[in-house]
Amino acid sequence: MRALVLDGHVTFTPDYPDPEATEPNVRVRVLMAGICETDLQLIRGYMGYSGILGHEFVGVAETGLYAGRRVVGEINCSCGSCPMCARNLATHCSSRSVIGILRHDGAFADYLVVPQRNLHAIPDSLPNEIAVFAEPVAAAYQILVQVPVSARDRVIVLGDGRLGNLCAQVLAPVAHDLVVIGKHREKLQLLRDRGISTALVSDVPPDRSADIVVDCTGSETGLPAAMAHVRPRGTIVLKTTVAGTQTMSWAPFVIDELTLVGSRCGPFDRAITALTDGEVDVRPLIQARLPLERGVEALAVAQRRLKVLLDVARQ
Amino acid sequence: MRALVLDGHVTFTPDYPDPEATEPNVRVRVLMAGICETDLQLIRGYMGYSGILGHEFVGVAETGLYAGRRVVGEINCSCGSCPMCARNLATHCSSRSVIGILRHDGAFADYLVVPQRNLHAIPDSLPNEIAVFAEPVAAAYQILVQVPVSARDRVIVLGDGRLGNLCAQVLAPVAHDLVVIGKHREKLQLLRDRGISTALVSDVPPDRSADIVVDCTGSETGLPAAMAHVRPRGTIVLKTTVAGTQTMSWAPFVIDELTLVGSRCGPFDRAITALTDGEVDVRPLIQARLPLERGVEALAVAQRRLKVLLDVARQ
Repeated sequence: MRALVLDGHVTFTPDYPDPEATEPNVRVRVLMAGICETDLQLIRGYMGYSGILGHEFVGVAETGLYAGRRVVGEINCSCGSCPMCARNLATHCSSRSVIGILRHDGAFADYLVVPQRNLHAIPDSLPNEIAVFAEPVAAAYQILVQVPVSARDRVIVLGDGRLGNLCAQVLAPVAHDLVVIGKHREKLQLLRDRGISTALVSDVPPDRSADIVVDCTGSETGLPAAMAHVRPRGTIVLKTTVAGTQTMSWAPFVIDELTLVGSRCGPFDRAITALTDGEVDVRPLIQARLPLERGVEALAVAQRRLKVLLDVARQ
Repeated sequence: MRALVLDGHVTFTPDYPDPEATEPNVRVRVLMAGICETDLQLIRGYMGYSGILGHEFVGVAETGLYAGRRVVGEINCSCGSCPMCARNLATHCSSRSVIGILRHDGAFADYLVVPQRNLHAIPDSLPNEIAVFAEPVAAAYQILVQVPVSARDRVIVLGDGRLGNLCAQVLAPVAHDLVVIGKHREKLQLLRDRGISTALVSDVPPDRSADIVVDCTGSETGLPAAMAHVRPRGTIVLKTTVAGTQTMSWAPFVIDELTLVGSRCGPFDRAITALTDGEVDVRPLIQARLPLERGVEALAVAQRRLKVLLDVARQ
């Protein structure tokens, strides 16, 4: 089959071995996939991953409960029996593999193998190019799973990229005093088009007034900036990882009694509902669509664009 | 009056000017004071403080609601009108002074001035050498104000020093599976005498099984150790500050969806009740008592002992 493979660097190959799936796994024929910041970081060496890239996808299940139906899939493949799984924390299974990220071939290929329990069927009304956002939209909703957010909270989202946009769209209906702070006028305009307040970094001197700050910068400047914006006893949500180490002072966490919450993968059901009902509008984020064969080029384009999609189904 | 004054270095002076208090402040005649790790850090330059040291005290109020009665006092002197005070977060008042720590002369002296609202009268049955622990015991109870702790939670307290001991005593009745990990056999023995489980650092390889880890190490090794002990989705409580910066990787916070909670000053009422009823036993922590005149020596002794008390009332 065709595949985009990372092995030190990324190459497109037309003849990767077709995978086979045995229960409880399902082989999924990929229709479309999305490129994520994590893919770009993996290419730079994050996690030391080698294999087929890609973890945002929509495809057709070939067997199992959803045979013949279009599906999206959660990315953490858990054992079902460890203490974390027993606690219903399967995304933290200590022996998990992660699709396209850790010991599990990904979705930038004609087929991938996914555990049945990771799959979610999607409504016929949901187009592929919308459904493919289920994974990052679920990650945005994870904030509301972990952190109580009330209508009165002053919320700042740092970062106007892919994830910052989705987090802002998810939080805006809940927190009425929300502003996205970013560096790119054209990306901030997309949010204003949705009725969301925005500001350029240079226009918002931090005044430690925010109840909640969500760091979606993907940059090592994000956490110090969040600490400058959050009020004492406030909460910082870390949505993006930064590779490598960072040097900073911890004393403010104690002195200001800050809470820091790391946040990762989230509820697919909620994301699918939001995409189906239009609560979250992802279309403006789609800035390029390329066929799988041009995947290497697509990854380069994704460095400077919002969402880049790969058309995997043969036209 | 007599006073222990920090001004680059610490000196005892017999003739510091007597302070005067006008409403809503109260002059307190100090009977006894306790030396805290923060005092030792202030001497090393933390906060850039100069003035009379000391923030753990018991004394006699000369005026106000508690005139003639023995009192202990909260250390944050707040404005009462800023947004933090309006939110009932007076300990985070943006224009606060802090007794013996920030722009406010402390308790290692014959007299200090304390806002009326910071004072708590103590029962006649509570001896000075127990009451003087109200401030650090309140800080230990702050954990239960900020973090939900249940009987089923596996809790690790890192550090067998003054604050680690008090935090363990406060948490043990709530979390039945609690262990204090420390480096000093004789300090750990004090906890075992209270029926609290302990272990030497060298005997407990981190296995990421703890639901909650409380860092009371006062060391830059504390946070990385806490991250090695806490389970995914677990909570790290930072009770001690480390001066200066620290270099580490943040990615585990996101990958493991950890929560970090900084925790500082706490509820005096709860602490006074616990000390009066013997829920927390502080007597074994008292390892030296010296008169105020020998304060410089007492500060040196406190570097290697648990609690060192200063007898301030003239014998």
